[in-house]
Amino acid sequence: MFVNPLVRTLRCRIRRRPGSFGLLATAIGSAGALIGEIRTQRLGTVHTIRDIEVLVSDLDHLDRVLAVIAESTDAEVMEVIDEVRRKHVGGKIHMVSRFPVTSLADLRRVYTPGVAEICRLIAADSSKAKVYTSIPRTVAIVTDGTAILGLGNIGAVAGMPVMEGKAMLLEQLVGLSGVPILLDTTDPDEIVRTVCAIAPGFGAIQLEDIAAPACFEVESRLVAALRMPIFHDDQHGTATVTLAAILTACKRARRDVRSSVIGQIGLGAAGATIARFAMQVSDRPVLGADLSDDAVRRHVAAGGVGSTLDEVMRHADIVVATTGVRGLIKPEQVRPGQIILALSNPDPEIEPEVALASGAAFALDGASVNNLLAFPGILRGALDAGATGVTREMFVAAANAIADFGAWHDVTVPDPLDRMVHRNVAHAVARAAHDCGVATTTLDADYYGAADLD
Amino acid sequence: MFVNPLVRTLRCRIRRRPGSFGLLATAIGSAGALIGEIRTQRLGTVHTIRDIEVLVSDLDHLDRVLAVIAESTDAEVMEVIDEVRRKHVGGKIHMVSRFPVTSLADLRRVYTPGVAEICRLIAADSSKAKVYTSIPRTVAIVTDGTAILGLGNIGAVAGMPVMEGKAMLLEQLVGLSGVPILLDTTDPDEIVRTVCAIAPGFGAIQLEDIAAPACFEVESRLVAALRMPIFHDDQHGTATVTLAAILTACKRARRDVRSSVIGQIGLGAAGATIARFAMQVSDRPVLGADLSDDAVRRHVAAGGVGSTLDEVMRHADIVVATTGVRGLIKPEQVRPGQIILALSNPDPEIEPEVALASGAAFALDGASVNNLLAFPGILRGALDAGATGVTREMFVAAANAIADFGAWHDVTVPDPLDRMVHRNVAHAVARAAHDCGVATTTLDADYYGAADLD
Repeated sequence: MFVNPLVRTLRCRIRRRPGSFGLLATAIGSAGALIGEIRTQRLGTVHTIRDIEVLVSDLDHLDRVLAVIAESTDAEVMEVIDEVRRKHVGGKIHMVSRFPVTSLADLRRVYTPGVAEICRLIAADSSKAKVYTSIPRTVAIVTDGTAILGLGNIGAVAGMPVMEGKAMLLEQLVGLSGVPILLDTTDPDEIVRTVCAIAPGFGAIQLEDIAAPACFEVESRLVAALRMPIFHDDQHGTATVTLAAILTACKRARRDVRSSVIGQIGLGAAGATIARFAMQVSDRPVLGADLSDDAVRRHVAAGGVGSTLDEVMRHADIVVATTGVRGLIKPEQVRPGQIILALSNPDPEIEPEVALASGAAFALDGASVNNLLAFPGILRGALDAGATGVTREMFVAAANAIADFGAWHDVTVPDPLDRMVHRNVAHAVARAAHDCGVATTTLDADYYGAADLD
Repeated sequence: MFVNPLVRTLRCRIRRRPGSFGLLATAIGSAGALIGEIRTQRLGTVHTIRDIEVLVSDLDHLDRVLAVIAESTDAEVMEVIDEVRRKHVGGKIHMVSRFPVTSLADLRRVYTPGVAEICRLIAADSSKAKVYTSIPRTVAIVTDGTAILGLGNIGAVAGMPVMEGKAMLLEQLVGLSGVPILLDTTDPDEIVRTVCAIAPGFGAIQLEDIAAPACFEVESRLVAALRMPIFHDDQHGTATVTLAAILTACKRARRDVRSSVIGQIGLGAAGATIARFAMQVSDRPVLGADLSDDAVRRHVAAGGVGSTLDEVMRHADIVVATTGVRGLIKPEQVRPGQIILALSNPDPEIEPEVALASGAAFALDGASVNNLLAFPGILRGALDAGATGVTREMFVAAANAIADFGAWHDVTVPDPLDRMVHRNVAHAVARAAHDCGVATTTLDADYYGAADLD
């Protein structure tokens, strides 16, 4: 599939007779574009007007799609609508007052003079800030702009639309306030110093799209310096949803994950963390393979066993690949009954269909592993528990919650816009925070019994 | 008046007969409490239930008020309601998505993959961030917690309720996003370094409740380092509303400010800036008096004339006092026709009634000078103009807009919750930004003609 495709909406006027729409859809597909949402704008007697969302690789590709439609169909593209750009005008997030301030009485309560009493309460007992300020619901979404999506080092400001997207989703899915922090530095010392200097205003820190290896140093130094959840989505989010996929695959293939041998091919940022999380759920040693001896050494130091691609394919019951190398796994290497998660995007190490045809019991590619299932609930659960950090147990609890939700709803991957999955993740993470002793807030039956996050 | 009074609501059950309410109100007053809002909850045949907001100096004072009510009235205080605390539970602000994200089609537009195209647009042309992100509408409200209200150095976290209050008002009055930044340092070097490191994510910086003299150094270094509006409310906000009061006083007293001699008594943070702004509107030298020779020297260096309290009182047509010294100005020093703004809070240098009785043409105290009239519109106007900084001309334009608004509506001080005054300030500031060459955005008739800020 495409890396960073363009999304456009074609407003099409289509003759109302059998076959017209099929012809149009076929034309779009034959030009190599994917069809997304289809909205019917008008059903007339002679013509139908439909908005068809297409994903194309670039503007030239869009032109080719339009040319094919013109040549091979009688549909007319009335307009090419750029809803992506329209949605971004003015930005996607806004800091708002939680209630209207319309009278001087309101003003006296939320501003001077009333506010002074709340300031003094907090000055006398800093834990009161958890009750009377927005801090425990606010997440700093921090980036230095060095690894924005697949676009690389394009700078923090150019990454803002991604950070705003994360903030939108934190609010829409779990009711948190996300504040983008765009750093004017890529130096790990400066990043750590800056984040520590502004940390008092936030309940948690979400590191985003900071390039490896700086991201690891930044994360571990922040964990050491701050008593609050530090979350690195590219590492912890990806590893959590991958672990959820492993657990789902085991349920589907009726295999016990505890007694399974898990093999990780590729021990980079995500891979190394996946391997570490996998060691939490399997009693057998996790095999790790990478071209870099250093990466394998780190895997061994973390409790894993060094291995090779061949060995992993021969011995592992569950194979996870995050190498970025298309077609790395040959069909003949797949053993019957194996679970294969080939996660490199957009081109997996082996196509799921090919793996299944070669005897795999279950196979997924990276499109089925969506970080959006993990980060909102993990942050919300950690904040609800007043966690002083995020432990491996909390990530594993999140992965289990995602896999369980999928099993209950009989889907491999839950709908990331379903607030219930995020509620379940939050509850599981909060409970795990208590169980492993990092919680500072006591949550009662009212919390866990709530139908939704408030 | 009280410094940092408590605000409480007394839910009172009052006999429904003539005189009962008067008796109750008199009792509250005789106990030294101020009455704010009065809301009638129920008008019964025998009793009336009213919520009466009272301002008291502390909890002991509240007890005394309750005792006086019990002794001298037949009203019953059913409940003492703490609406201030209730309003603060969970914090007062929230970062929200500007539109709902409910379908995968929405997700594709505001998040991956659609967002990548916007990131690339900005990477190719950074000015596009003004169109496609929330940055140009977002203000960092920065404090180190060293001078929170009149409470002193209570720390940034204890100051959060004030910062949230400012953010609420920015949203409610002028539609800006305010993001509190609580600093874990009070060192000017560290403050400047931190603010510069996070500046790319904001359109403007509002410095709040940072103690003098560090605040001046921080401000001037940020102005030198960043090409964006840097606003220090305790200094620029106060000076702007004071200048507005001077202009209002001149209108009321039918005096021409250009030909008036203005005298400033007290050349601290606010006073020195008031004197500098006053030099913009008067053709005559501004007299400045302070016990500190250094402060007077700085005033002279800024173009003013060194003076003394006595001289100012003898020669100035308009006297502004910001000394913090109660009763500093004696009635016999007041000259007939003089304009006296005695702004120290809570106890002015001379009570307005006393000044008027001694022949002053116009007199105000600090209660009539409200920063809330200035900061929202100044920030909004500067951001709308894409101003690279806030010039003295822009502050003077804001002061004129406030004074003109008061004159049109025949009030000395406009209602700070009237969005129209903020719209007028924003428009005046944006126009001044263009006139003095710091604007980067072209604003057309649509902008200035709009009935409200969108």
